[in-house]
Amino acid sequence: MGKIRIGIVGYGNLGRGVESGIRQNPDMELVAVFTRRDPVSLQISTSGVKVCRYEEIESYKGSIDVMVLCGGSATDLICQTPEIARHFNSVDSFDTHARIPEFYSAVNEAALQGKHVNIISVGWDPGMFSIARVYSGAILPQGKDYTFWGPGVSQGHSDAIRRIRGVRDAKQYTLPVESSVERVRKGENPDLTTRQKHTRLCYVVAEEGADIALIEKEIKTMPNYFSDYETTVRFIPEDEFRRDHGRMPHGGFVFRSGSTGENGQHSQLIEYSLKLDSNPEFTSAVLLAYARAAFRLAEKSDFGAKTVFDIPPAFISPLGGDQLREKYL
Amino acid sequence: MGKIRIGIVGYGNLGRGVESGIRQNPDMELVAVFTRRDPVSLQISTSGVKVCRYEEIESYKGSIDVMVLCGGSATDLICQTPEIARHFNSVDSFDTHARIPEFYSAVNEAALQGKHVNIISVGWDPGMFSIARVYSGAILPQGKDYTFWGPGVSQGHSDAIRRIRGVRDAKQYTLPVESSVERVRKGENPDLTTRQKHTRLCYVVAEEGADIALIEKEIKTMPNYFSDYETTVRFIPEDEFRRDHGRMPHGGFVFRSGSTGENGQHSQLIEYSLKLDSNPEFTSAVLLAYARAAFRLAEKSDFGAKTVFDIPPAFISPLGGDQLREKYL
Repeated sequence: MGKIRIGIVGYGNLGRGVESGIRQNPDMELVAVFTRRDPVSLQISTSGVKVCRYEEIESYKGSIDVMVLCGGSATDLICQTPEIARHFNSVDSFDTHARIPEFYSAVNEAALQGKHVNIISVGWDPGMFSIARVYSGAILPQGKDYTFWGPGVSQGHSDAIRRIRGVRDAKQYTLPVESSVERVRKGENPDLTTRQKHTRLCYVVAEEGADIALIEKEIKTMPNYFSDYETTVRFIPEDEFRRDHGRMPHGGFVFRSGSTGENGQHSQLIEYSLKLDSNPEFTSAVLLAYARAAFRLAEKSDFGAKTVFDIPPAFISPLGGDQLREKYL
Repeated sequence: MGKIRIGIVGYGNLGRGVESGIRQNPDMELVAVFTRRDPVSLQISTSGVKVCRYEEIESYKGSIDVMVLCGGSATDLICQTPEIARHFNSVDSFDTHARIPEFYSAVNEAALQGKHVNIISVGWDPGMFSIARVYSGAILPQGKDYTFWGPGVSQGHSDAIRRIRGVRDAKQYTLPVESSVERVRKGENPDLTTRQKHTRLCYVVAEEGADIALIEKEIKTMPNYFSDYETTVRFIPEDEFRRDHGRMPHGGFVFRSGSTGENGQHSQLIEYSLKLDSNPEFTSAVLLAYARAAFRLAEKSDFGAKTVFDIPPAFISPLGGDQLREKYL
């Protein structure tokens, strides 16, 4: 049987993660990378892979099984996925929660018209965390959900700090409040405020002569991003920043704390957690597993927009039913 | 829309758990309980529910949507599920791993013949732990799996102790070795022996005048059950046993410790864990969620034997696609 032929659309952190991920999946091969930049400017590490302008993508109809869309939600995917769905199967990591209903509708219409399978909002949140919530909510109808994120880098919060006057560079770490995580883990079912769930730690490189006290104040009072949190700001030299803050770790914890029995007298706790050295590479790994599912659903002519909720676990695994039952059940 | 009409087959701890679980699921109703005992001897707490002899079960064709089979694997399910599959949709918690292939085949043949959906090996292990392994193995192809069980009561090990001469009653707790769990959680990827993963703690009530030293030796040297483990035996008075060891807690941890990136330089850790006050009630809760899936698959005429690997998460949830995307994605 031939390999699943993958195309990558967008070659940033996520696209590079998909590229290295394909090497871990012997049933897949990378055919081409599509970019809006000058193709010559891209350094692709896989040999024999074509780098093409995004505009050429339609000429690959029939030679690529699944497009892995690696752009951002707001600027790229919102328009790109419905376009792509007319011509290709795809997976993407669309994560603008408020716009998912309209996005799903637009992708679904295009997918049904083009007879393709397009799995949206794949990754870890949305993605694996969403799956954990659906499973445990269905199993424990009586209970409470908790999600803690981190420790990890928030790109959005780091960007917000960088937009402040006098800031040369910045990285923001979201930290779960350990004592609150422990209370949930003990089955206490606490009501937690925003402040009790996460703290924010910011490493900032200031421009020379910048007003450091003012920058700190601007960060800590920034609405939505920081004002509701315990925020710590640390100014560090640029060389220390380059050395210690170049990675993109992340992770978090999803809990369902429920009860069962005649009078709900028995506590039952489900925890799903991730500890990721590389957030984009993990997201890429999830995208690839679901690219396999998109390929299989398309083979069964089960077309349309899909989410991770619609996909049986067996469909993302390279193993067959017999092997899965033998090895994992 | 009418409720999903449930029948319970076997009324032990699991059957009682299903009964109380149905009250937490407004889309389900309990129609009848089937037993091999004298129906008059059963105390059912739900009013209006019929208690019937197992032999009468076929007369309920058409009035029960899904049978939840609550017997043991070795003595009941191995024959019962294929029988039931000819006449009803069902879910069971068959857990004799070595016999799953033949069991699956027998159930599948009967299910296809009877045009029913029969989901086998549902619970937490096999069940939710199996699902965790399939998801994380597909996402992180390069990595190691770890499963730790406990702290919790092992029925099989407790029974083994009770068969020793001079033992009046006994309860065996399986305990994960905390330091090994921590090594896995830190991403060390250790190779662990049986002894390094779990210890066994036994509470024993001895008959009066029994040779306590001999009992302890018999437990600790029992092949398969105890000889490969660090085992602690504590003799306690019967009243303490009744007071402190009447519950059936259990749980455990499933890890996938993998790596991604150009040279596998980034560690990625997935952890799924359960902390259960009542093992049978949690298993019952999982069975009920999958009873919903069996009902829905039957409505779509997608007949046959199934495992949890074949069921999309959306199928076990009472919520519709729109609600799931809105609430959980």
